[in-house]
Amino acid sequence: MKKVEAIKVSPISISSKLFYLGRFSQSTMATINDNYLKLKAGYLFPEIARRVNAFAEANPDAKIIRLGIGDVTEPLPEACRTAMIKAVEEMGDRATFKGYGPEQGYAWLREKIAKYDFQARGCEIDASEIFVSDGSKCDTGNILEIFGHDNTIAVTDPVYPVYVDTNVMVGNTGEANDKGEFEGLVYLPITAENNFTATIPSQKVDLIYLCFPNNPTGATATKEHLKAWVDYARANNSIIFFDAAYEAFITDPSIPHSIYEIEGARECAIEFRSFSKNAGFTGTRCALTVVPKNLTAKAADGSDVELWKLWNRRQSTKFNGVSYIVQRGAEAVYSEAGQAQTKALVSFYLENAKIIREQLTAAGLAVYGGVNAPYVWVKTPNSLSSWDFFDKLLHTCNVVGTPGSGFGAAGEGYFRISAFNSRENVEEAMKRITEKFKV
Amino acid sequence: MKKVEAIKVSPISISSKLFYLGRFSQSTMATINDNYLKLKAGYLFPEIARRVNAFAEANPDAKIIRLGIGDVTEPLPEACRTAMIKAVEEMGDRATFKGYGPEQGYAWLREKIAKYDFQARGCEIDASEIFVSDGSKCDTGNILEIFGHDNTIAVTDPVYPVYVDTNVMVGNTGEANDKGEFEGLVYLPITAENNFTATIPSQKVDLIYLCFPNNPTGATATKEHLKAWVDYARANNSIIFFDAAYEAFITDPSIPHSIYEIEGARECAIEFRSFSKNAGFTGTRCALTVVPKNLTAKAADGSDVELWKLWNRRQSTKFNGVSYIVQRGAEAVYSEAGQAQTKALVSFYLENAKIIREQLTAAGLAVYGGVNAPYVWVKTPNSLSSWDFFDKLLHTCNVVGTPGSGFGAAGEGYFRISAFNSRENVEEAMKRITEKFKV
Repeated sequence: MKKVEAIKVSPISISSKLFYLGRFSQSTMATINDNYLKLKAGYLFPEIARRVNAFAEANPDAKIIRLGIGDVTEPLPEACRTAMIKAVEEMGDRATFKGYGPEQGYAWLREKIAKYDFQARGCEIDASEIFVSDGSKCDTGNILEIFGHDNTIAVTDPVYPVYVDTNVMVGNTGEANDKGEFEGLVYLPITAENNFTATIPSQKVDLIYLCFPNNPTGATATKEHLKAWVDYARANNSIIFFDAAYEAFITDPSIPHSIYEIEGARECAIEFRSFSKNAGFTGTRCALTVVPKNLTAKAADGSDVELWKLWNRRQSTKFNGVSYIVQRGAEAVYSEAGQAQTKALVSFYLENAKIIREQLTAAGLAVYGGVNAPYVWVKTPNSLSSWDFFDKLLHTCNVVGTPGSGFGAAGEGYFRISAFNSRENVEEAMKRITEKFKV
Repeated sequence: MKKVEAIKVSPISISSKLFYLGRFSQSTMATINDNYLKLKAGYLFPEIARRVNAFAEANPDAKIIRLGIGDVTEPLPEACRTAMIKAVEEMGDRATFKGYGPEQGYAWLREKIAKYDFQARGCEIDASEIFVSDGSKCDTGNILEIFGHDNTIAVTDPVYPVYVDTNVMVGNTGEANDKGEFEGLVYLPITAENNFTATIPSQKVDLIYLCFPNNPTGATATKEHLKAWVDYARANNSIIFFDAAYEAFITDPSIPHSIYEIEGARECAIEFRSFSKNAGFTGTRCALTVVPKNLTAKAADGSDVELWKLWNRRQSTKFNGVSYIVQRGAEAVYSEAGQAQTKALVSFYLENAKIIREQLTAAGLAVYGGVNAPYVWVKTPNSLSSWDFFDKLLHTCNVVGTPGSGFGAAGEGYFRISAFNSRENVEEAMKRITEKFKV
């Protein structure tokens, strides 16, 4: 049969009425996703760069120390490097060459993650429930693809901006108000008054983002706090997105590393993990998402659908797995040498955090976080705004941090200082603050 | 100010009415993206595996040769391996350690891509228009995020299934009919009758997927054919998604490698490229997408919005760049040694394709493609269905290929054989076919 003309299959039995409305008002030219126009122009870090550059130009001799961005600075563990070099060499031999790997990650990596990160802590997580990826930023954004657009979504305030922006981009919100809050999102303030743990909402929300140890506040959650969330989620058929990217910084044995340490979490939570901060993989790229197999959400017809199947389909269709070389590097984190080396790396940054906490306290500032977390959250003195504090610190001490208001309206009056830097830079920055900064 | 209760920001001035309808019918529990339920269960490769496994169990001595999946088999070029080992070593020294890189890719890689892949062929593509990514599969799926859901979308038939499935997943289609065609998509048949180049549609479509050299048919497009598409797209304000993942296999100097070799393409086309097939990166992961800066599509208010800005925002928000180590490997493709080694790799697979073409022709089969492409597209003899031919080839020759019907309804009666294998396997498979297969 010869078909000489393009065939338009007519939309007869489309399930969603919303879809129909879109179909019937077809455009006469290619159209964009208008939701992108609601986004604020990522003003935080560009504005920081603008102010730092202006200062640097006016003060060319100033030695500026940047404690702003949460990026690691210390070398990759030797165990990881050795494993990656071996993997590169394997790629040079036809017998050991690796082409496409499983989209979900290699079994040998998923099994080690399940065993060391979860089963060793009493979490019933199977290797098949681990999805290896190239980043938690990708995963926390992409996870929204498998959910409907009629969910009510809660985020903390302040919050990692990616959670909010990715919801805006897929159309889960309206416009932003002048405080930067998007219509349709439920904001859960976390401040010193509630010990930086959000109050469980009185209304019903369907999807909830939690991040512990928290970025940006450095707060941690007790088992009791997480249990309250799990109980809420189970009672309301909600799903918790639990971002545990900083779990390696927990040293207090009473603090849970995984939400699956809480009974019932398998029925309501997806967890995100990363090798970025424990093993210094920010430039190497490896992370993972856990989707328990019995976790479900509702289809339009009221039936329960396994989220594991949807995420597996999403990853199989839109992702080709993480580089074999990088996966071998991640696997080495679980070797005896890798465990010792990543522990040393984490201890190094935690010692930085301790120095920052102690010195800022000595300088008369109120500080939070930085104990089981790499971020120190500073209350600005004398009711200074976050940006005024930023300017004062930059001008008097030539030290750069991140204004808390950049993470949300309730971050106003706070300031984030990152422990990810060399000891020398941290000590010099703190010396300047204790000597020159007048509260 | 102490906030003890969660605040629900009410949706007052949301721009999209469709959005409102969703908001007002809020769910009482977390809901899924129902579009996923429209997807066919990736039946092609699982069904191939099922039949091959059943045959292997019944015939344990059969030496099965797999020419089905389009995955490379030969070692990674030495230049790439040397560069990656150096990069891993740099990660071990604080002075050369790399944390987060630019989400768009490092400038030194983007500049080489722009120079060697585009400017050298007369395409006016700037390094800033190159977005380095971890795969074309990801990019061709993710690109839909920046477009509206009211676009009319055209795909060829047969087609790389990811184009179709990702449109289904974001809600751009209705349900599939029993031929596997999704309502709302425009299918453009490509068969021997039209020389495997789709007829320009008489109706208006907004987004068009083109892949040359083509997967699965191995067909190429002349400059004249691409010019007809560019002229159509410019006349209709359409956007062409041009997948050039197999461009390295073009040896005929008259065939364009990039759509930007066609005048006016900067105003209507996004191009996808990959290191998977030219340099054997299927397991190493590196690709790129080109979004010209003057390319626009319409916002709901009728204004023109630069797609570069939207894609840049998408990548900055949802992606953290490709591993530094892998980017150094990709950069080495452009070194003198890298160019020679990738050329040798491509020539090797093209020689495989030539052997396949010649031997299948000798066996009495009609074959297409496989000259400037790594895929040979076989017309099944005696009106056999694609699956019947699959079974016959498996049972008589113990050779596995891919049924053309798995790529779309118009692929029925065709069969794909991949040149990605060792010379030994290709020669043995062809020997069996010429000796045992009776047309």
